[in-house]
This record gives sequence, structure tokens and C-alpha cells, in this order.
Amino acid sequence: MPSADQDAAAPARTTVGIIGAGPAGLLLARLLHNAGIDCVVLESRDRAYIEQRQRAGILEQGTVDVLRAAGVGERMDREGLPHDGIELRYDRRSHRIDFPSLADGRRVLVYAQSEVVKDLVARQLADGPPLLFDAEVVEVAGVDPGSDASHARIHYRRPGPRGPGREESRPTAGLSCDYVIGCDGSHGVSRAAVPAALRTTYERAYPYSWLAVTAQAPPVYRELIYAHSTRGFALASMRSAEVSRLYLQVPNGTDPVDWPDARVWDELDARLAIDADPGRRLGRGPITAKSVLPMRSWVMEPMRYGRLLLAGDAAHIVPPAGAKGLNLAVADVVELSRALVQRHVTGSTERLDAYSATCLRRVWRAEHFSYTMTELLHTAPAQTPFQTRLQLSQLDRIAHSRHAAAELAENYTGLPIAPPSPYAS
Amino acid sequence: MPSADQDAAAPARTTVGIIGAGPAGLLLARLLHNAGIDCVVLESRDRAYIEQRQRAGILEQGTVDVLRAAGVGERMDREGLPHDGIELRYDRRSHRIDFPSLADGRRVLVYAQSEVVKDLVARQLADGPPLLFDAEVVEVAGVDPGSDASHARIHYRRPGPRGPGREESRPTAGLSCDYVIGCDGSHGVSRAAVPAALRTTYERAYPYSWLAVTAQAPPVYRELIYAHSTRGFALASMRSAEVSRLYLQVPNGTDPVDWPDARVWDELDARLAIDADPGRRLGRGPITAKSVLPMRSWVMEPMRYGRLLLAGDAAHIVPPAGAKGLNLAVADVVELSRALVQRHVTGSTERLDAYSATCLRRVWRAEHFSYTMTELLHTAPAQTPFQTRLQLSQLDRIAHSRHAAAELAENYTGLPIAPPSPYAS
Repeated sequence: MPSADQDAAAPARTTVGIIGAGPAGLLLARLLHNAGIDCVVLESRDRAYIEQRQRAGILEQGTVDVLRAAGVGERMDREGLPHDGIELRYDRRSHRIDFPSLADGRRVLVYAQSEVVKDLVARQLADGPPLLFDAEVVEVAGVDPGSDASHARIHYRRPGPRGPGREESRPTAGLSCDYVIGCDGSHGVSRAAVPAALRTTYERAYPYSWLAVTAQAPPVYRELIYAHSTRGFALASMRSAEVSRLYLQVPNGTDPVDWPDARVWDELDARLAIDADPGRRLGRGPITAKSVLPMRSWVMEPMRYGRLLLAGDAAHIVPPAGAKGLNLAVADVVELSRALVQRHVTGSTERLDAYSATCLRRVWRAEHFSYTMTELLHTAPAQTPFQTRLQLSQLDRIAHSRHAAAELAENYTGLPIAPPSPYAS
Repeated sequence: MPSADQDAAAPARTTVGIIGAGPAGLLLARLLHNAGIDCVVLESRDRAYIEQRQRAGILEQGTVDVLRAAGVGERMDREGLPHDGIELRYDRRSHRIDFPSLADGRRVLVYAQSEVVKDLVARQLADGPPLLFDAEVVEVAGVDPGSDASHARIHYRRPGPRGPGREESRPTAGLSCDYVIGCDGSHGVSRAAVPAALRTTYERAYPYSWLAVTAQAPPVYRELIYAHSTRGFALASMRSAEVSRLYLQVPNGTDPVDWPDARVWDELDARLAIDADPGRRLGRGPITAKSVLPMRSWVMEPMRYGRLLLAGDAAHIVPPAGAKGLNLAVADVVELSRALVQRHVTGSTERLDAYSATCLRRVWRAEHFSYTMTELLHTAPAQTPFQTRLQLSQLDRIAHSRHAAAELAENYTGLPIAPPSPYAS
């Protein structure tokens, strides 16, 4: 029976074993490669799947800077759409939040996560460390704090030779490493390797979901619009100058088939309507994707267990209204790369030891901001008129107070990511 | 049978009839008197009761300015304690919020509401319009929008001649007026004069109360301390340089007898403890008052019905953590006095017509701030660990972000109260 260990692209040993080829795992591999540290990325899906997966689309200034410095910013700089603000709509009025004037010149870039992944994959396959698709991790072993380095091991399965009746044949392989990095998202196996008694999880479910729609229609509005309305929240976003990405608050359990295209457009127009521009409607075009996204807040502490370190969605989930998920993952792996470089160059584990606490401070800030934006803009099924009045008062405050607007702008454009470690090449 | 109408101090007609001699009613009477407009204040309690009633103790900068300009600021300026900030405690750490540097030089004054009332009563009895104690309003009539001025009428009862078996004798009197102002708080009759079909109420109850304690003990700390702790919220405030006013979050339905003095002091010390100053304890002294305050948010819209206008607690209640109740009442009656002066001098009701909308914008801002402070600092019985982490993240944000701190400082020290109307003398 063939063993994946015999695969030339699948070494039996590396310094850092990375589980998951989302933006966190791929960017970490790039940062480690740039610093001369060996690593291997194992991804359970195939290339087409991860490159098409629709996720976030807003890059913070710090994320843009990191991608550029990592050498994967060329297409992003060419095709990304810089946004200097967002528009808030409430009470049939509209108010723009100007980012650069409120947040020390910072802005954001509209560039889809799937594009970031494509850029990172292309670069890694061209000159990077091994990236194994269809590598399904089944177990993470030997990472507990008492183990020595040689014991950390990732067990995974790869497809055996294809053929009728052979689909089940997935021989198990092993990858030994000094550190295992869990970047395998909220459904991955990494989390489970942390003993239940040693982890604390924090969570909140929300009583509504988003109907997310991709349309071949140029965005009518120059910037993103976040709309509070008596009919529920709506968000008019975009993926490019030709493609709109649109969201509607819907009840949990909504089936997209109950939302034919015309209903989607009509509802968006109704929720985005303002008195100053009553006739304005979104430009309509073919809807190419329609899905329902439940939303939740979730954090696991600590983000480290011995030689296993978690990054991105594997450690924390935010509801999407703050546009923080991808950016948090980037901040995690930047910190992680510096910690691993410090360990590699000096032998010190000081930064690795502080990794969880360092990241969690930013994580909780983002959790708070994401929660606040979510609660500010949505209308919960059991919402009282008192709560609606508080939402409108706070939206009005943001529109009229520089400090309140700046709080939104600073959180939205993101806390600075500290400059690269002096140890990084 | 004697009639109160025959009482020399109880005229049968006035321009503005004011129900309630709390700070709202008394200050409005003073402002109208200063502007040369007749009014009468009817108060259901006696003088001793309203002068001893313990309520708020923090005057916003704008409130101080108004009281001073109204001619009742002399003792306040002499005995009030100017505070340039508050201290936040959380996670056994301490952080000071400096008001003047964050809120355009504004500060607050610690001066008890009962002292404000004493000053206003003394001034009114010396040279003001009639102030009738023991005048229990039983009905407000003829205020509906269709009525002409001569129909507005306040029916009230005053004690008959004292004597055994005569307590029940309370003849009814009437006061005709152009406008009736309801300043009779959350248990008054004014609210009820607005037809149920024409008013909307908004409310929220909180799942905890405050145990409020007055102690003959000099405050150990120079400024107020708002403490978030795993044991619940605590607030160390003061009434003067000799008297402390202290609060502990307790379950709803708590009986003060379950809180002997030693337990109060021990619990305060535990909740206020910080790692940097672990031995520090509050100075203990005789506790002279102990009560339990439930808390709620409540707003009625609109604040006007025809010739009846509501001000202060009659129209809105805030939980006390934002120190906004008294200050909102002052802002209401300042606006009201300007509207009545405009009506008196020019005949225009423009400002009266806008009164409710003008006040409600400030009211909702204060409701939002009071709600936010309450939710930030208390630990609800059903609170999840996720919510506690959000509280700590936001407290940490306030401690490290100028904009977040300024939002607190601006709201706490209060929105500016517009300068006195040019019509006021």
C-alpha cells in the first residue's frame, strides 16, 4: 500500500507544521519562508475549493501593509479598491464616516479574501515551502507541554490511487515538527487537540443571519453602505468595480430559495432608501451566488497548548459586521511568525510564551467592536422599542460627535500591527 | 368649610402652574420669575421631606452654569466639590479619566440634589412666586390641544384645619393657568393626564439594584470611583468632605437589614481592591442611611400634550450610573423657560411646539449613556463569560484610547446647554 511519506512533496519532518491553507496558514508559511524557517502546509480541500470560497473582502491598512511587505501585494495593489470611508444609513438619513481624517490617515482596501488566497497559493507553489492539498489531518499528537520537540506529530490522510471502489483508500502519513500551527478554522481538528479541561470557550449566538448575494452588477455607491432600517439591516458592498456583494438581515433558518432575485433587489432598495435620494435604486444584474450565513461570536482561551498554537478562525470567530475576521487572522500570524523567528534565531521562547496573551487583547477588542456593530445595526426579533431608540441615538451620536465617529473609524480600519520583528529577514 | 382658594398664598389663577417642587419645578419657577412670568408651584409633600430626600449628587458643568446664572449658586459655589475626573477600576487595576483635558475644559461639581433643593426653596420663599406645600394634585384638566387658555386647570387638595378626626378633611382647590408643567416625577399624576392613545412609553428594567449608603466618614479617595469587579459593581461617591455616599450592586428584592454595616464596608473594600494598593480600605464611620434603589430606564414620548408639558422624571427615568437624572431635568426646564418666555414676549409658540423634540434628542443621548455605563459596569445574574470579557475589553479600551475616554468624559460632563434665550431677563 503506498504511503504518503513516500511522496516527494510530503516531507516526514519540518520545523513548523501548518494545518490549513486559508489566509492565516498561507501567510504564515510565506512569512516563515521569508525568514528562512522550514514549514509545510497541509490542507484538507483542493486548490479550486479554497480559491473560490467566498469570505471577507475588507483589508485593514495593517493587513495591506503586511501582505505587501510579504511580497504578495502586487495584484492587490493593482486591483484592490481603496476606500476612504463608509456610509451609515438610519432613519432614512445618510452619514459618511471619513476614515483618514478620523483615524490618522488610515483607510481600508476592498480586495476579496479569495483573491488574497489565490495570490498566496500562486506564490507558494512557485517558490514556497510544500503545500499539500487533499491532506486531511486526523490527529495532532505529542504537543503537550511536557513533550520534547521530536514528539510533535501531525497525522493526516491523502487520497490513495484513484479508481473504482478505491475512494476510501486514504493511507495515513505523519509529519514530525517542532511546532504545530492550527489554522484550520472553526471546523478544524486543531482546537480539539487542546484538552477540554485546559481551554475556556466564550460565545454568543445571534438571533438573525445574513443572506449574502454576489451579483454581476457594478456597485451604485462608491463606498460600503451599512444600513439600519425598520425592515432590518442591509449592507451594500462590492468585490470589484464590476461585482457587487450584498447582504440582508434574514431570520435564522432562512432558505435562500425563498429569496428570488427580484425580492432580494426590492428588499435592498427598501432598506437602503433615504429621504434625500428617494428614487435611487441599486443597479441590478445577474445574481451568481446566494447563501445564508449564520453569525456568532466565539473565542477560545488560551490560543496555545504546548507546541500547538492556534491562529485565525481556529481560535476565534467574529460576526461579519465589523469586517474583522480576516484581519484578526493576519495579526495572529504576524505575531506568530515573529515569535517563531525569535525562537529560531535566539532560542528564546519569550514571545511564543506571550503569544496567546498578546493576541487575545486584540481579539477581544475586535470581538467587542464586531458585537457592537452587530447590535447597533440589526433589529433582533424580540427587540424592544427602547432598544431601537438607543440604536438611533447612538447612530446619531456617531454622526455628530467626532470622538464617537473616530472610535468607529479606528476600530474599523484596525489597530496598528507592530512593525516586523528585527529578527525577520 | 374653608376653601384653599381663600388662602392668600394660593391664587386662583396664574400664567404657569407647576406641579412638583423637586429641582425641575423649583428651578423652572426661578427662571420664570427672573423673566417676569407669573407661576405657582404645588408640592404634595412638606418642606422637610423634599429637602431631605436623597437623590443625585453630580452636577454637570452646564447645570452649574444654569444654577449660578439663575441666582442660586452662592452656597453651591462655596460648598460644592469640583471634580476633574473619575476613576475606573476593573480587573484589580485603576484608571483615571481626566475630564478637562478630554472634554474641552469641562468638569463636574459634587453637590447633593437635596442641597440644590434647599437653595431653591429658600430663594423662592424669600422672593419668589408662591410655593404651596401639602398641595396634592388630584387632576389636571382642560389641557387638551383643542382647549383655549382659560380652561387649563389644576385641581388639588390641601389639609383642612388640624384636629382629632379631621385629618381626612382636605378641601379641593383649583388653579387656572395658561400652561401646566408636570415636574412631579415618576409617581406623579401629570403623566396620566396624557391620553394613553397619544403616548408611547419605552422602558427597560435591570436585573439588579443598588444598596445606597450614607456614612459619616470622609471620602478616602479624592474623586468618585466606579468599580467593575467579579463581585459586582461598586461606586464610592461623596456628599461633602465629611460625608461619603457609597453604593453596592445587590440583587433585586434585597432587604437592607441583610446588610449590617460591617458587611457593607467589607464588601466595598473587596470590590474596590486593586493590586497596586492592596491594603487600602475605605475609612469607616457611622452609617446614617441605608436603602435599596431599583433601577430602570423609562421614556415617554411626546413630552407635551396640548397645554401640559412634562419635565424631568415625569417624562424620563435613567439608571443612576451615568449621573444624568438631575442634569436632564435641568436641561428640560431651561428649554421650557425659553419656550415660555418666547410665548410670553412674542406670542410665538414655535419653541413650545418644538419642546418635546428638542428635549428628546438629549434625553435619548442620556438614556444611551446611562444604559451603556450600567451595562459596562454591572454583572448581571445571567451574565455569560463572553459578556464579562467584552466589558473588560471596553474598559481597557477606555483606558487606552483617547477617543473612547473622551466619549465617556463628554457624556459624563454633559452636552452643552445652549446659552439663555435672548428673551430672558
